[in-house]
Amino acid sequence: MRTKDTIKQDALFEATIKLVNEIGFAASSVSKIAKEAKISPATIYVYHKNKEELLVSTYVQIKKNMGHTIHEYFDDSLPLRDILKSVWYKFFDYIAIHPEYFQYTEQFANSPYQALVNKEEVEKYFDPVIHVFYRGIEQKIIKDVSFDILMAFFLHPIVALSNPRLCQDFEPNNKNIESAFTLAWDAIKL
Amino acid sequence: MRTKDTIKQDALFEATIKLVNEIGFAASSVSKIAKEAKISPATIYVYHKNKEELLVSTYVQIKKNMGHTIHEYFDDSLPLRDILKSVWYKFFDYIAIHPEYFQYTEQFANSPYQALVNKEEVEKYFDPVIHVFYRGIEQKIIKDVSFDILMAFFLHPIVALSNPRLCQDFEPNNKNIESAFTLAWDAIKL
Repeated sequence: MRTKDTIKQDALFEATIKLVNEIGFAASSVSKIAKEAKISPATIYVYHKNKEELLVSTYVQIKKNMGHTIHEYFDDSLPLRDILKSVWYKFFDYIAIHPEYFQYTEQFANSPYQALVNKEEVEKYFDPVIHVFYRGIEQKIIKDVSFDILMAFFLHPIVALSNPRLCQDFEPNNKNIESAFTLAWDAIKL
Repeated sequence: MRTKDTIKQDALFEATIKLVNEIGFAASSVSKIAKEAKISPATIYVYHKNKEELLVSTYVQIKKNMGHTIHEYFDDSLPLRDILKSVWYKFFDYIAIHPEYFQYTEQFANSPYQALVNKEEVEKYFDPVIHVFYRGIEQKIIKDVSFDILMAFFLHPIVALSNPRLCQDFEPNNKNIESAFTLAWDAIKL
């Protein structure tokens, strides 16, 4: 059973995302977020030092959730291409199911708040798949280029294709997601 | 010689970009932009119907400028891979030289203002290189996938790699730009 505390924290999480997506980071004050979440501003300050900390922790929470989801049924014994293909599909699924979380993280990643994130903590949630890329490089299956370059051809295409403002004609059905994976794999494989 | 009129329009262009990058679209009012450009708000309304029209036309102006730059020394008779490699480098150069224009277009592309842009007009500025992709598909050099997918592996990696918030460790030197091009080419080639 969810405790009263968990219910409040969930409401705060959803309200923060909803309000920021609607009116942006600058205009989203603690009092407006509290009103949206139907809790008192004082309650927010029980969990979060200030607005910045609330925004950052909301971002980290989404990343944790996303990391958990893309690793469901993760099987390290499968061929590397199959592991990455499964992760590829799960990313598209996650974004399709939670477009509002995706919109929040996209805005966040392009905001000055990004600098306040504990990068190591966020990376931890993606450790298994990050490790697959490094193993691929060691085994000479994946090109020995920097992680930023690999992500520019694995993660960022997903981000671009899932953003209807950037890719108006891309419909995220299985055929198109599979077709795009072919390009991602051809890009990164040795 | 630049006329008084051109000087005012250039000042307005630069001021719009500077202010939006500093305080965002919502907070950038016509009067603040006028102050920044050291012209009167009335002068802005001579050229632009309203704030929206000013923001959109600033975006289109950058795209025009960018389209012009990436097509310098464009030689349609070269091998397709060489043409795209030249365009690839020119994109990185353009962004490195004009980080403030890039920041503006990135924010703009993720804003509701994007919907107000005349897409055909902007595409016109990129016609020669767009045509190269379609020719590549016809000649079975490039994969026959949608233009959105091709751009997710050609244009968006440049955007991601040029954004220091997304790719903190990528230094845009020749070696790294060339290395990343290998992945782009491997992704899109048949």
